[in-house]
Amino acid sequence: MTEKHLHELMEQMTLAEKVGQLVQLMPDFFAQGGEITGPMQQWQMSETQSYQIGSILGTHTAEQVYTIQKQYLENSRLKIPLVFMADVIHGYETIFPIPLAMAASFDEQLVEHAAELAAKEAAEAGIHVTFSPMADYVKDARWGRVLESNGEDPTLSSVLTAAYVRGYQGAQKQLSKDKKRIAACVKHFIGYGAAEGGRDYHTVDLSDLEMYQNYLPAFKAAIDAGVALVMTSFNTVHGIPATANQPLIQDVLRKKLGFEGLVISDWAAVAELMAHRVAADGEEAARKAFQAGIEMDMMSDCYLNTLAQIITAAPELQQHLDHAVYHVLQLKDALGLFDDPYRGLAAADLAVHLDPAIRRSTREAAERTAVLLKNEGVLPLSTSQKIALIGPKADSTDILGAWSWIGKKEEAVSLKEGLIGKNLDLSVLPYADEQALSDEYIEEACKLAQHSDVVLLAIGESSEESGEAASLTKLTLSRRQDVLIHKVAKVNPNIAAILFNGRPLVLSDVEESCKAILTAWFPGSEGGHALANLLTGEVEPQGRLPMSFPRSVGQLPFTYGQLSTGRPKTADNQDQKYISRYMDEDNDALYPFGYGLGYSSCDIEETTVLTISAEQGIFEVKARIVNQTDRAHHTVLQLYSKDLVTEVARPVRELKQWQKVYIPEHSSLDVTFKINQACFAYIHSDLLLKNDPGKIALYLGFDAKQAKKIGEISI
Amino acid sequence: MTEKHLHELMEQMTLAEKVGQLVQLMPDFFAQGGEITGPMQQWQMSETQSYQIGSILGTHTAEQVYTIQKQYLENSRLKIPLVFMADVIHGYETIFPIPLAMAASFDEQLVEHAAELAAKEAAEAGIHVTFSPMADYVKDARWGRVLESNGEDPTLSSVLTAAYVRGYQGAQKQLSKDKKRIAACVKHFIGYGAAEGGRDYHTVDLSDLEMYQNYLPAFKAAIDAGVALVMTSFNTVHGIPATANQPLIQDVLRKKLGFEGLVISDWAAVAELMAHRVAADGEEAARKAFQAGIEMDMMSDCYLNTLAQIITAAPELQQHLDHAVYHVLQLKDALGLFDDPYRGLAAADLAVHLDPAIRRSTREAAERTAVLLKNEGVLPLSTSQKIALIGPKADSTDILGAWSWIGKKEEAVSLKEGLIGKNLDLSVLPYADEQALSDEYIEEACKLAQHSDVVLLAIGESSEESGEAASLTKLTLSRRQDVLIHKVAKVNPNIAAILFNGRPLVLSDVEESCKAILTAWFPGSEGGHALANLLTGEVEPQGRLPMSFPRSVGQLPFTYGQLSTGRPKTADNQDQKYISRYMDEDNDALYPFGYGLGYSSCDIEETTVLTISAEQGIFEVKARIVNQTDRAHHTVLQLYSKDLVTEVARPVRELKQWQKVYIPEHSSLDVTFKINQACFAYIHSDLLLKNDPGKIALYLGFDAKQAKKIGEISI
Repeated sequence: MTEKHLHELMEQMTLAEKVGQLVQLMPDFFAQGGEITGPMQQWQMSETQSYQIGSILGTHTAEQVYTIQKQYLENSRLKIPLVFMADVIHGYETIFPIPLAMAASFDEQLVEHAAELAAKEAAEAGIHVTFSPMADYVKDARWGRVLESNGEDPTLSSVLTAAYVRGYQGAQKQLSKDKKRIAACVKHFIGYGAAEGGRDYHTVDLSDLEMYQNYLPAFKAAIDAGVALVMTSFNTVHGIPATANQPLIQDVLRKKLGFEGLVISDWAAVAELMAHRVAADGEEAARKAFQAGIEMDMMSDCYLNTLAQIITAAPELQQHLDHAVYHVLQLKDALGLFDDPYRGLAAADLAVHLDPAIRRSTREAAERTAVLLKNEGVLPLSTSQKIALIGPKADSTDILGAWSWIGKKEEAVSLKEGLIGKNLDLSVLPYADEQALSDEYIEEACKLAQHSDVVLLAIGESSEESGEAASLTKLTLSRRQDVLIHKVAKVNPNIAAILFNGRPLVLSDVEESCKAILTAWFPGSEGGHALANLLTGEVEPQGRLPMSFPRSVGQLPFTYGQLSTGRPKTADNQDQKYISRYMDEDNDALYPFGYGLGYSSCDIEETTVLTISAEQGIFEVKARIVNQTDRAHHTVLQLYSKDLVTEVARPVRELKQWQKVYIPEHSSLDVTFKINQACFAYIHSDLLLKNDPGKIALYLGFDAKQAKKIGEISI
Repeated sequence: MTEKHLHELMEQMTLAEKVGQLVQLMPDFFAQGGEITGPMQQWQMSETQSYQIGSILGTHTAEQVYTIQKQYLENSRLKIPLVFMADVIHGYETIFPIPLAMAASFDEQLVEHAAELAAKEAAEAGIHVTFSPMADYVKDARWGRVLESNGEDPTLSSVLTAAYVRGYQGAQKQLSKDKKRIAACVKHFIGYGAAEGGRDYHTVDLSDLEMYQNYLPAFKAAIDAGVALVMTSFNTVHGIPATANQPLIQDVLRKKLGFEGLVISDWAAVAELMAHRVAADGEEAARKAFQAGIEMDMMSDCYLNTLAQIITAAPELQQHLDHAVYHVLQLKDALGLFDDPYRGLAAADLAVHLDPAIRRSTREAAERTAVLLKNEGVLPLSTSQKIALIGPKADSTDILGAWSWIGKKEEAVSLKEGLIGKNLDLSVLPYADEQALSDEYIEEACKLAQHSDVVLLAIGESSEESGEAASLTKLTLSRRQDVLIHKVAKVNPNIAAILFNGRPLVLSDVEESCKAILTAWFPGSEGGHALANLLTGEVEPQGRLPMSFPRSVGQLPFTYGQLSTGRPKTADNQDQKYISRYMDEDNDALYPFGYGLGYSSCDIEETTVLTISAEQGIFEVKARIVNQTDRAHHTVLQLYSKDLVTEVARPVRELKQWQKVYIPEHSSLDVTFKINQACFAYIHSDLLLKNDPGKIALYLGFDAKQAKKIGEISI
């Protein structure tokens, strides 16, 4: 439709119909064949209202979407199609590795392609919008939702966030034609990951400087990539919940970042303004959220039951209402719903046909995101070894991770299943006790380990232990897995731990007991096949940590990009007291950001830093990467910087660029980084992104800690 | 001197002499009999410069002060006396309990009196200014410097901060006459306690709202009480180190809080602007700090060596310089130094005569600050019991705590020494191994415990483990004390743990193993005598926690005054997933703020909430406190509030008032709280302190958690 047509449509709408467009409900709120359901009763919702609402979230099948849309269109006066939204976070039915794992690929193409495939599956099931990507800046692994993040680096997260948007949405403004794509909703605006004490939904306190510097960039990247929706976060920003925060939405999101799409609340967040105690009742909650700029109220009855009265009492809000409704209609139009309300739905029988190519892609993604943290000659496995597979994750299909609600565990490939396909001398100790590791199991495990050459210890978290609302005060392995490791290590030190986890864990104990550690994350539907390929060496582990693994939970929040302090701990002052350090722990991470091993290695032998144009601030870094081993190697070459003197305190290191490189055995490769000084701009105290003239040190290497200084440039 | 005289003096001063007044150095920088010392050489400091500097910090004795002042006055051109400053934190030579313990008294008179006595001792040793009180808001016990704080409540901290100022300084503007008092320097402005991860000197990020609401009040209280100096903090505020933060010093400290005294940096903080990377060299550091408003440069060579050039190059800074110098001279004048440069110094022989009354006061303070956390019938001790005293703190005189540098450990009374004075059947297992608890010691301890009725387990931290730069990632007991506890508990469950600690510790294990826990903190010179009185029941424990003791280090930062969230954990939703909670730990503290037991107890039987004047917002709370036991009882009755609907998210509870009450056995007491609605004003999003009309719930009780709702008022 043209803008004119949309406005004509709006002119026909009653106040109630306009308000209805701003309401998003679960399918069970929707009158089924005219019946008033329990949830409708609870919210005193009439049948008329149900045919005025604008959006449904969380449908499960194509058939469900078809049925609801059809009934709605038959009964609603203006026949404005519903827009269907859902949490398609890392795949829809075929599950990719969790987002934190995907970030370990350092590979925007991989991410974009995965999002494209997820969109295809979701679109066939009638989904029009996904509540993804999650662009939250994170540095506290106690917060279980780091699982959905792109890790701790704002630049990496920005690149990957944009890749998700492109993957879901396809070419800009082509959603109405490309019905295998869906609209993306970037979340959570903003600061959600900074929950105090890592406790989900807890208080957040941030300065503007910190917000602009670390939290906004990934959202800006999504908006620049044309993201259709933005979801606000549950937390407070400057004391006011984001959902009621007018300066945040109007000044920062709309004006500063230039977002022109639809702003939606998170689940029930408008009603939760009452729990926050910034609203006395549903009406005040609705008024505050609406005035702040929340256009769609997800799963609360506040807009539904009070917004019409609010507008009637304050006609000056009418224009504001029209803007919001226009954004909803615009989204529906952009999706082509006015022309085809059943857009993308799978063939006539409404069953989604799973594409085997998608499964292959999830396997490749799992192969490229696992991170080898340690390997003292145990991996890859050899066919001549007696191998024991032990532990709660040995034959578990609980490997999809949180937010994989459509994915079926029973279709996931367990580690055991994957390994069985290989020509290995493998003994598996099945794990039956879902509650805790019994003494009997541990005893059996030790017996088996004693008679094996290598022990594969499959351990980690359950899907319930990471993700939303999975906040932890302890990040060591739970459920007696520590006992299992220690006892097995006593009888056989040749342990390779295969770790299933949704967040950085504290692995100090595991590191001491195991000769190899491979972090599989939650690897998705094809996890077992991917891991089998990795463990046997058919594929080299290529993942690199997108988030530091701390030494102790007491170090959190933690990021490699911590700011310079006045009393830094350095190589020269380790024993001094009055420096910024812990008395009972090192300051640094156990495994730093960017870290990960392969089955081979390479060296950086020659580096040059060139000023191509001092005037324009263009530079080049050249490096020769040499593989002197008998085995080809994949790695991620990382370029970090440090601005030597700045207006505000700045990180001790910042990732600026990276390249995935492949170097055949006994060969070398010349790598060039082209640098524009714009990448060194930073947020100043006036909240503007600017360059400072001055010197910048550059570091090159394979992780944030070991990267070596290669020179300085002047901008 | 009159203002006119001071200005006349300034007119005679050269630029170098003016700059000198802004420099504070250690005594060893001071030329001794004309000799150029090592430190002077290092900073390329001339003898002339040494007779121009304005202040000395950290002298040890009256004699030292006398010698330096005399030499300085003989050699300096204008004979402006030096002002001598030092860290007199909890006593000078006679040591009071640490400030965190003093806060456990909830008693401003006690604090004021202690500060007065500390001032007396310090003044006799020639000290003119103390770097106390520390008014930092704290909620992270990993930060060792919570030891110097008044705990986590901004209102309690404000009251006690003001009490320190009154105690040190005496009546306003009487310092020149009252030579037993000294000037106070409130620190650290601001945000120092919010160090990320609890790591001292680490990055701080705060919103203005948070700063105004929680961090400023205690500073405001100090300034309103007439504090003479303010020290800036090491940390960044909005990305800029406080020491170079012009908006912070000029807009917040000077304009908002109306501070008119002298602003001093923390130790070497001006030079540390280089480590922060916001200054390229000493000159830039000096310029930034000076322009920001740092008037005295503590222990760096930046002002000394570059400020004169900076002023010469930028004559517009001359006026700024004159203001700073004027503040220094004004302080010296306020102290009466122009009339008596040896003010307060002890008698002719320059030896300080320790006043036995001060020791008595420290004992009383220790008695009133220890907190009884648990007591299942073990305490008080009885003379008929066989008592074993065991543990690293059993006979330790390391009970003074950090920042007691003039206090002598050898003059401190150990727990053993204190108990020996009582008529007890006591066996002591001496503790020799300073490094770790040996297996032999633990074995001996178990043997002794086995043959005793009660075990006193003296455990905790060493002085080095709490205080500045004593950052920890783990807050459980260290040095194998956990092993000692568990082994002893197996042979004798009648354990009373006597805990020496500078911060809240994680006591979950201790709680499980011990029947009684008495937190002695670092109790000061008379610790052993005070504890003996408490343990035998001659004195009832009266301390109440000024800071929550967490269940797990993973809960930090933590405060009872956490803000309302949108998804609070309540009595009704404990088992739901999507609420703000930890999966592996309760949300609340093990021992909450305000908590503490006595040897008796009482009940709140009748409460009334009265509106005295709705118009003026005056209310009263009346309560009848009933002691039905056979023993008199001391307690702290605490009144908390919750504003039901607010503009910005507010704490779930806020301490508003408290009363220390004493109730004889079998009697009751009527208590009245007079409330003015001004106490419910809070910082709004516009950073103004205002009242909102609306309802406020009131809670009354004996700690932050158990206080019960007694009614609502409307303002």
